[in-house]
Amino acid sequence: MKKYIAPIAIALAAITPFTSVQAAEKVIKWRLAETWPTNFPIFGDAAKQMVKNVDEMSGGRFKITIDSRNKHKAALGIFDFVKSGQYQMGHSASYYWKGKDINTLFFTTMPLGMITAEQNAWYYYGGGEELARKVYDKHGILSFPGGNTGNQMGGWFKKEINSVDDLKGLKMRIPGFAGEVLAKLGAKPTNIPPGELYTALERNTIDALEWVGPSLDLRMGFHKIAPFYYTGWHEPATELQFMVNKKAFEKLPADLQAILKIAIKEAAFQVTSQSYHESAVNWATMKSEYPNIQVKSFPDSVMAELKKANNELLAEFEARGGITAEIIQSQREYLQKSRVWTDISDKAYLNNL
Amino acid sequence: MKKYIAPIAIALAAITPFTSVQAAEKVIKWRLAETWPTNFPIFGDAAKQMVKNVDEMSGGRFKITIDSRNKHKAALGIFDFVKSGQYQMGHSASYYWKGKDINTLFFTTMPLGMITAEQNAWYYYGGGEELARKVYDKHGILSFPGGNTGNQMGGWFKKEINSVDDLKGLKMRIPGFAGEVLAKLGAKPTNIPPGELYTALERNTIDALEWVGPSLDLRMGFHKIAPFYYTGWHEPATELQFMVNKKAFEKLPADLQAILKIAIKEAAFQVTSQSYHESAVNWATMKSEYPNIQVKSFPDSVMAELKKANNELLAEFEARGGITAEIIQSQREYLQKSRVWTDISDKAYLNNL
Repeated sequence: MKKYIAPIAIALAAITPFTSVQAAEKVIKWRLAETWPTNFPIFGDAAKQMVKNVDEMSGGRFKITIDSRNKHKAALGIFDFVKSGQYQMGHSASYYWKGKDINTLFFTTMPLGMITAEQNAWYYYGGGEELARKVYDKHGILSFPGGNTGNQMGGWFKKEINSVDDLKGLKMRIPGFAGEVLAKLGAKPTNIPPGELYTALERNTIDALEWVGPSLDLRMGFHKIAPFYYTGWHEPATELQFMVNKKAFEKLPADLQAILKIAIKEAAFQVTSQSYHESAVNWATMKSEYPNIQVKSFPDSVMAELKKANNELLAEFEARGGITAEIIQSQREYLQKSRVWTDISDKAYLNNL
Repeated sequence: MKKYIAPIAIALAAITPFTSVQAAEKVIKWRLAETWPTNFPIFGDAAKQMVKNVDEMSGGRFKITIDSRNKHKAALGIFDFVKSGQYQMGHSASYYWKGKDINTLFFTTMPLGMITAEQNAWYYYGGGEELARKVYDKHGILSFPGGNTGNQMGGWFKKEINSVDDLKGLKMRIPGFAGEVLAKLGAKPTNIPPGELYTALERNTIDALEWVGPSLDLRMGFHKIAPFYYTGWHEPATELQFMVNKKAFEKLPADLQAILKIAIKEAAFQVTSQSYHESAVNWATMKSEYPNIQVKSFPDSVMAELKKANNELLAEFEARGGITAEIIQSQREYLQKSRVWTDISDKAYLNNL
């Protein structure tokens, strides 16, 4: 049969344009669930960009539709959606799954840890990618970096933080390892999906929250009810996450696997530049547009306690051994090595101007 | 004819795997000329990665071969190769073409200018891409960012630089705007392809050179003959360049155009992480492996003169008007705006640790 078909296929290719041949192929249809509300800026743009990349590069053979939290109603359910195969893909953040698998915590950002350039180098060339694979393999999920927001602001507070005592009993929306650090100092950290943040702050469900930075915070209106805006310590390089159901991925032909992986990477890369741009633009006009915002940094005494608690907590987690210890050690070693280079390059450059 | 063929194409698609259909299509073959010697690390890896991306994503329908300078013998002839269509693509750096079109100078990096994160934000969201298009359109070339090395070291010098007088008459390999700045202070800047740098330094054709940083410099052996290694001021965010002949690009079907553009972007993104990694790793062992290297920073008096000359030169170029002024103004405004954000985010974070 094959011998007979091949010459016909060649004859067809010769007289029909590529698009006709492709249109004749079966269109693969996938669904993606995202943590974000519909048309959420930057983060939502990344998923849209990824979908557009896949559509264009596959010549329309691979179509992905996006369901926002408004549709699927489970902003923090993306991990389960993708693990079960209910959705083939998700866009969210790895540290939201710390309650399901503590080792997912380390792949978003770590307080007092690596900045974006360092973390990317660690992930792609310093062993991070292999560690992420180990963690996610057992869940049948492929995890990919989904866009880095860069250094995040330390959050919005209703009251000024003058000493570590002001953190005791403080109800704050702060996910990831930073939440654990604050808990160690007596705060009550929680995670709340982005679509519910303003209401939670307004109704005093929480006293403070961190979200992202000037790129995304100002349009949320937090400044109206929590005017103290602190500089960052807790998320120096927040990387979002694209998740892919592994079985679904393995069913794709090789070219569409390559297209999906590279489409993801391009979309993620754009998040970094778009975040930086939006932060710069919004910061530049923030003081004139929102004169009530008071930009603050945590006092040295609070920073010292945060560092101490962070180190103690890392040691506690490391003592669990296994992959948890492996990740913490890998990140610590890489931070030390890469920070020396950061200090002599970008930091020295910026400080010497 | 079409009515008759369509059902056959559908029938074929149903019983043959994608790869067979694709293999039956005409394979498009392109050639890329790179500035770098064969198997040059990082930079050469980027071109190889781009070619691999295109091959995999197109299912083998689009093949690009790479000619290094060892083959085409014209390391700094890439612009002409691509403009004329002799090669469909090139991998090089935009500031190498300042003698052909002065406005190409601004798209690599600018002395005392934006760092990588700022420059990417400017390029993709602050108007840089549109300006690059204006400059390259008239040459029939599409220019794409080709990988950012990050902050580069200030170079290797045979003699220590103690005052601006030590720059007078200094023969230095330093391309781009930084070369113009040094010329203003009495130095004699020149550009020499990477494959010829060591010999030029050894034979005293030049007294000093800058190449990249610890990621690539150490294996070149410069430290053996020029042991003073200066920190950077002149190339805070060196972006390489992929060039594509516009007519060749326009002949590609839409899916392969998308594949090429996104393949380029992924390969370029990897350069940043790979450079950072190699810099960190090599810097960490540099002092033990090469104890004769003396790391220096230019004295304040020299830095002040460099800044002054840079500002004067920017004003002179701006006075030319047209697109030159447009680019300089766009970069200046964006640097001011984005640097305020850099100062409150990464810089404050690094300085407060």
